[in-house]
Amino acid sequence: MKLASLKSDRDGRLAVVSRDLTRAALAAEMAPTLQAALDDWENASPRLAALAEQVEAETTTTFRFRERDCAAPLPRAFQWADGSAYVNHVALVRKARGAEIPGSFWTQPLMYQGGSDAFLGPRDAIPFLDESFGLDVEGEIVVITGDTPMGVSPEEARAHIKLVMLVNDVTLRGLVPDELARGFGFFQSKPSSAFSPIAATPDEFGAAWQGAKLSLPLLVSINGAPLGRAEAGVDMTFDFGQLIAHAARTRRLSAGTIIGSGTVSNRAADGGPGLPVSKGGVGYSCIVEQRMVETLRDGAPATPYLRPGDVVRIEMVDRSRRSIFGAIEQRVEAL
Amino acid sequence: MKLASLKSDRDGRLAVVSRDLTRAALAAEMAPTLQAALDDWENASPRLAALAEQVEAETTTTFRFRERDCAAPLPRAFQWADGSAYVNHVALVRKARGAEIPGSFWTQPLMYQGGSDAFLGPRDAIPFLDESFGLDVEGEIVVITGDTPMGVSPEEARAHIKLVMLVNDVTLRGLVPDELARGFGFFQSKPSSAFSPIAATPDEFGAAWQGAKLSLPLLVSINGAPLGRAEAGVDMTFDFGQLIAHAARTRRLSAGTIIGSGTVSNRAADGGPGLPVSKGGVGYSCIVEQRMVETLRDGAPATPYLRPGDVVRIEMVDRSRRSIFGAIEQRVEAL
Repeated sequence: MKLASLKSDRDGRLAVVSRDLTRAALAAEMAPTLQAALDDWENASPRLAALAEQVEAETTTTFRFRERDCAAPLPRAFQWADGSAYVNHVALVRKARGAEIPGSFWTQPLMYQGGSDAFLGPRDAIPFLDESFGLDVEGEIVVITGDTPMGVSPEEARAHIKLVMLVNDVTLRGLVPDELARGFGFFQSKPSSAFSPIAATPDEFGAAWQGAKLSLPLLVSINGAPLGRAEAGVDMTFDFGQLIAHAARTRRLSAGTIIGSGTVSNRAADGGPGLPVSKGGVGYSCIVEQRMVETLRDGAPATPYLRPGDVVRIEMVDRSRRSIFGAIEQRVEAL
Repeated sequence: MKLASLKSDRDGRLAVVSRDLTRAALAAEMAPTLQAALDDWENASPRLAALAEQVEAETTTTFRFRERDCAAPLPRAFQWADGSAYVNHVALVRKARGAEIPGSFWTQPLMYQGGSDAFLGPRDAIPFLDESFGLDVEGEIVVITGDTPMGVSPEEARAHIKLVMLVNDVTLRGLVPDELARGFGFFQSKPSSAFSPIAATPDEFGAAWQGAKLSLPLLVSINGAPLGRAEAGVDMTFDFGQLIAHAARTRRLSAGTIIGSGTVSNRAADGGPGLPVSKGGVGYSCIVEQRMVETLRDGAPATPYLRPGDVVRIEMVDRSRRSIFGAIEQRVEAL
């Protein structure tokens, strides 16, 4: 089933959405909010699934679903932990800063604790604060877990994945080096992230959901021009089971925990960074990777970071070209 | 006023507690949970304050308040961001690892994003996982904010402080060096934190709350022996207004955000680390500082990290020796 939170109050109003994203029904009878549904998932999810069937069969009253009416599926969450499963991305970003990655990055997931108190909806503006901050997009896949015990194994962890979404993990590149050098990880360099209109259960993906990975291309564009269409199922060194197990090594995870894949990133056949979309490659899911490739090739980056007026779009379509999660489509706006 | 959350469901039941911590009344009429009260603080807080007056005057029905019935005031929160305002502590901990701190640490707060989805109550056991993890306590002061706009100044930020608590920011010292070396900050090295039974409004502290600092000693003991009684108002390089402003530089903070002071730590008169309580000093609010001092003095640490059966107690008393927040008193238990 596909769920969305319509903008309303702090936590939105939970709605069940038709597979083709045209119609929806409020789920207030089952759960007023998505967090409430996750808190009581065993009871709520079969009832939500029954409503989803009615929406699909048009045997219940529905209203026109509009992505622009949506908040993030969880407008605020109790946990947002973002991994770096596409180690290729980490290697490239570090290379752009003149740093190498330790070998352990390929065997143990890297993960940071993100701010989760105030997410952006899929059409909310991205605030532009300062040219020097280097505003960038990061296109990622994320999962929402149910209650997950401490010490869960990667295999057991898969059963705790309840929903899947897309995220724009907005990053201020200009603030990253100093924050990481100070040793306490990202904070000011990671302002509010934005999420796709839809959170979908893994069974919506059919064969594309395998091994706790989503094997479809992630479409990222800026001002209508494709930046990336990397295959999310390729070069994902750690699957979502492994990422959840990493997060739960020393503490349990509460229902509604969001675990991110990190920026989706594919290597070229020769193991290098791959070509931009304009040159026939799959491109990149963030600007800094494209800048890195430009630097390696031409000695300097050519693609600018985001400026006021720019529009970022992140989407995933199925093999029939139908949007799965709806689109994250955000305009950059000066405050 | 003093507020507590009685253990019940995921978010507890909000209660107003008498100043002497002996009696309480449920606040269900005003707000079912502390998060609900914070979400609507302008309306809820005067009504809660009126109930607090009734509890104090014994003009409403009350029940016996027991600290052991309490969850953390926010059993789960949307944000937990912990600063390092006592730069002395950071300098000592780094010294113990053979590292120096950069000068910017004295002019710009250091802050990490903590996990907030599953806090421990004041009497909940601390899970003991592995001897090599180096289980340590960190005694700190924390504040809970209301909605706070992005870009708030340190002075304006003070008005957004709604409540004050104590925290045991449990730390796994053995996991810290590797996590910080990987550059993404703490994650597995920071399991669930525990909070004091009471969250109190700043007006409860009288003259002890000045300049967005709480000027009282923080009492930390292990197995009944005092580890520290450092003055929380002394050597706090950044006050809570500055810490909040740091957190809100690139994004707004939602109501219920918890901002921590970092481990309370005083320097000796000569600028050095100070003496243990047993030698007439104010001691330390975490074991690693005492171990550092032992190493500097004797060449090796003598105080062990926490083991199963150990009991940690963190408390703050007013100038009349009355407990302000109740006590965090946790037993370490092997799983």
